[in-house]
Amino acid sequence: MRAAISIDSASSIPVHRQIYQAWRDGILRGRFAPKARVPSTRELAGALRVARSTVTQAYEQLIAEGYLQTQRGSGTFVCSVLPEKLLHAKPAPKLKTHTPTAPRLSEYGARLFDDFDYPRKQPGWISFSHWWPDQEQFPSASWRRLTMRQLRRESPDVFNYAQHAQGYEPLRREIASYVSRFRAASCTADQVIVVNGSQQGLDLCARLLFDPGDEIAVENPGYLGARRVFLAAGAKLRPVPVDDEGIDCRALDKKTRVVYVTPSHQFPTGVAMSLQRRLELIVWARQANAIVIEDDYDSEYRYSGTPLPSLQGLSADTPVIYCGTFSKVMFPGLRIGYLIVPPKLVSAFRRAKWLADRNTPVLEQAVLADFLGEGHLERHIRRMRRIYASRREALIESLFRYFGASATVYGDAAGMHAMVRIDDRSVGGLVIEERAIKNKVHLRSARDYYLSGAPPNEFVFGFATLGERSIREGIRRLAP
Amino acid sequence: MRAAISIDSASSIPVHRQIYQAWRDGILRGRFAPKARVPSTRELAGALRVARSTVTQAYEQLIAEGYLQTQRGSGTFVCSVLPEKLLHAKPAPKLKTHTPTAPRLSEYGARLFDDFDYPRKQPGWISFSHWWPDQEQFPSASWRRLTMRQLRRESPDVFNYAQHAQGYEPLRREIASYVSRFRAASCTADQVIVVNGSQQGLDLCARLLFDPGDEIAVENPGYLGARRVFLAAGAKLRPVPVDDEGIDCRALDKKTRVVYVTPSHQFPTGVAMSLQRRLELIVWARQANAIVIEDDYDSEYRYSGTPLPSLQGLSADTPVIYCGTFSKVMFPGLRIGYLIVPPKLVSAFRRAKWLADRNTPVLEQAVLADFLGEGHLERHIRRMRRIYASRREALIESLFRYFGASATVYGDAAGMHAMVRIDDRSVGGLVIEERAIKNKVHLRSARDYYLSGAPPNEFVFGFATLGERSIREGIRRLAP
Repeated sequence: MRAAISIDSASSIPVHRQIYQAWRDGILRGRFAPKARVPSTRELAGALRVARSTVTQAYEQLIAEGYLQTQRGSGTFVCSVLPEKLLHAKPAPKLKTHTPTAPRLSEYGARLFDDFDYPRKQPGWISFSHWWPDQEQFPSASWRRLTMRQLRRESPDVFNYAQHAQGYEPLRREIASYVSRFRAASCTADQVIVVNGSQQGLDLCARLLFDPGDEIAVENPGYLGARRVFLAAGAKLRPVPVDDEGIDCRALDKKTRVVYVTPSHQFPTGVAMSLQRRLELIVWARQANAIVIEDDYDSEYRYSGTPLPSLQGLSADTPVIYCGTFSKVMFPGLRIGYLIVPPKLVSAFRRAKWLADRNTPVLEQAVLADFLGEGHLERHIRRMRRIYASRREALIESLFRYFGASATVYGDAAGMHAMVRIDDRSVGGLVIEERAIKNKVHLRSARDYYLSGAPPNEFVFGFATLGERSIREGIRRLAP
Repeated sequence: MRAAISIDSASSIPVHRQIYQAWRDGILRGRFAPKARVPSTRELAGALRVARSTVTQAYEQLIAEGYLQTQRGSGTFVCSVLPEKLLHAKPAPKLKTHTPTAPRLSEYGARLFDDFDYPRKQPGWISFSHWWPDQEQFPSASWRRLTMRQLRRESPDVFNYAQHAQGYEPLRREIASYVSRFRAASCTADQVIVVNGSQQGLDLCARLLFDPGDEIAVENPGYLGARRVFLAAGAKLRPVPVDDEGIDCRALDKKTRVVYVTPSHQFPTGVAMSLQRRLELIVWARQANAIVIEDDYDSEYRYSGTPLPSLQGLSADTPVIYCGTFSKVMFPGLRIGYLIVPPKLVSAFRRAKWLADRNTPVLEQAVLADFLGEGHLERHIRRMRRIYASRREALIESLFRYFGASATVYGDAAGMHAMVRIDDRSVGGLVIEERAIKNKVHLRSARDYYLSGAPPNEFVFGFATLGERSIREGIRRLAP
C-alpha cells in the first residue's frame, strides 16, 4: 500500500512530528477533504515502516487539535466541521488601513523615514548630512563600567518594571538637578517624565495637548521630526517666520493651541531666541491660553557667551513643556529623553506614557543616573564643546576661504550644524549641488525644513562627526 | 550707599554670578522697573566691596541677554521693552487639555495605572496579584555576560541609531525563527516589527488599524491593557463572550474592524482557543474584511499537551497581526516585544514606530538576539515550565483541599495565573475577600476584567512568583 503521506528518515524532525505536520498541512490545504477516511494507525505504520506507536502519537495530537476525529468502530476521519471556505480560500481581501490617522502616519512617516535614511558612510565620500554626536569621542569605557556595576548589583530595579511609568526616580532627580543648574529650569523631580528620546516626548505632547484639526504653530523653517508627529496627530500647522531673534511672536494667532520652538539653537537656522522674544512668547501664551513646547536640543553646545536661560525657568506658572534629550550629547542609540511638565499635567503625561509603552527600560536609566551623578556627562560636554567649536571654526574658515562673500553663515556659534547661504556665482559650470555629487560630498539643502517660501541656495552643514581636515576638504570639493 | 542688591561672600557661587542673578531675578519679578537706572559698575562695586571688574562681568552678561541696556553718556538702565504684563503677571490661566483624546488618556490611563499599581511586597503578606515571571529564576548571569560581550564589541550598532526603526536585524531574524519553530507562525524577518513590549505593539495597532468611533471586538472578560489602549484611541468596544473554546465568533458583527484575542491562554479565563474556533475566526475576519490581533502571551507555558499552532500561521494571507513579548518569559524590566504583520502593512507599522520613538534601544536588542541565538531562552523556558507547572499544581491541590467542590478552576493547565470561582459557603462569618485582608493575602477579583455581566466570586490567582509553600499557606489563609 502506498502511504498517503511521506516522511524523511534523514530529517532531524522526529517522525511523529513529520506525520503530524503532513496531515495538518494536507488538511489545511484541502488535499484531504473533510470527512475523508484516513488510514488506521496500523495501516499507516506498515506503509511508512515505522512503529505503530509513532503514528498513534501523531494521530492523538491531530485528534486533540480537532484535525481528525474518530468514529467508534468505523475508523478515523478528517474532521467534518472544518470551515470549507477556509480550505478553498480565495486570496484574502486587501487589508485596509483607511483611517484618517493611518494614511497620515503612513505618508508623513514615510517622508520622515526617508529624511533620516541618511546615506551610509561610503568610502571616499564626505558627509555634511549628519547632526549627530561624534560617537568615537564618547567615553564608552565609563559607560560600560557603569553598566556592569548596575548589572552586578542584582538590583531588582533593573530587572523589574520601574516603580513609576514616569521614570526611574534616581534618574528623575539627576535630570531635575541638571536642568536647574545648566538651563535655569525651575522644577522638581516630580515634574520630570522620562521618555524614549525627544521623539516620544513630542508624540506624547501631540496626543495630550490638542485635538485633530487644532492649530499648532511651528517655526518656519523648522524641525521635521516635530512637524510630522503633529501632522500625524491631525494638527493644522501654522508656519511662523523666524528672524535673527527667533520666532516672530506677532505672527502667532489666538486660535493657536500649541507653539513648538527650539530656542537654544533654532533648527535649522541656528538662531538663539532673544530674551525679549522669550518673554513676549510667554506673555502671548498666557493670554492665548496656549502651551509652549520648548525643545531645548543643542543647548549644551554654545561656543561663545553664556546660554540664555530656558523659557521654562523664566517665570513661575509658565505654560511651558520643556523637552530634552541625551541622544544628542551622548550617543543616538541611547533612547532616553525627558519632558518637564507643569505640575498639573504630570499625571496625564505619566498615564499617557504608561499606555504608550509602560516605561522606558530601567537598566539604561539607572546607568544614565550614575553617569550624570558622577559628573561624567558634564566632563564629556566640556570636552566636546572645545572639539565642536574647533570643527565649526574650520567650517566657517573654509567657507570664507573658498566662497568669500558668497557664503553667509546664519545663527549663533552653537550646536552641531550651521545653516549657510551660498550664492553660487559660477557661470556656465556645475551648480553647487551638482559639484557635490560629482566630488563625493553629501550636502543637505535647507529646502525640506520650510513649510513654504524656501529661499534658494540655503544648506545645512552638519560638522560634529567630521574631523577638521575632512571639513576643509569637503568645502574645497564644493568650491567652483 | 546701600547696595540695591546683596551678595553672600560665604557662598560657593562666584560673586559675578550672584550679582547677575540678583539683577535678573529682581527685573523678572518687577522689583526693578523697566527704564529704571541701575548703579554704575563703580558705584555697585564700592557698595558691595568687590572688584569693579567683577561687577562689569555681571553687567556685560545682563546687557548681552537684554536685561540691561546702556545709553551713551547717561548710564545703564533696566531694559525698557521687557513686556510689562509678564513683570506684573497674574497667575497663569489654567492649562487645558480638553481634547477628546486627553480626557480618555487621562481617565483610562488613570484606571489602568491604578490597576497595575500592585501592592508592594509587605512583610507577612502573600500576594496572588502578580502575573509576572519569577525573576529570581532568570539566568541573569548569562544575561550580564552577553551584555558585557556586546558592550566590549564596541560595535557601532549598539551606540548608534538602529539601521531600521523596524528593529535590529539579527534580532528580527531570531524572532522569526523562534515563532516559526514554536508557534508555527509563518513569517520572515521582514515582517517582524520590534516594539517596546506588547503594550507599544497594541498602541501602534490602535493608531493604524481603526478610526475613532470604530467598533473593536474584545473578549469579555479580557485583558485591560489592550482594552484601555483601544479606548484611549477612540474605539467603541464590543464585548464578546468567551466560552470553553475561546471567543464566541457568532457574537461578532460585520461592523467590527478589529478583533483582539488571546488564543493561547485567554486572559483571564485561561481557556485555549480550539482549532475549530480559530478557523471560524479567520473565515469571519476574511469575510468582514476585519483584522485579528492575536496576543499570544503565555503561549510558552503549557503544562499538558502540545500548544495549538498560532492563528497567524494557520493559513496564508491571513489578516492576523501577531503580538508577542519577552517580558513575560524573561523579566518585566526588559521592554522588548514584537509584532508580526502582513507584508502589506509592514511599511505603515515601521513608519508609525519611527514617529512614535524612532527605535527600541539597540543594546538590549543585540543582547536578546544572542540570548535567543545561543539557546538560553529555550533552556530557560523548559526549566520554568517545570517550576510553574508544580506551582500551579500546588495551587489547584490547595484549593480543593481547603474549598473542595466550592472551588472551580477554569481554563487549561497553562500560563502564570488561573481563574477560579469560589462559592463561599461560610455562613455568618467573614466573606473570602474580608478573610484575605484580615489574614494578609492580596487577592484579585476577576470583576475588573469584565466589561459587563461580571459573575460574583471569580478570582484570578497569579502563582508564578510564589513558592509552593507560600501558595499552600496563602490558600489556607483564605479558607473559611
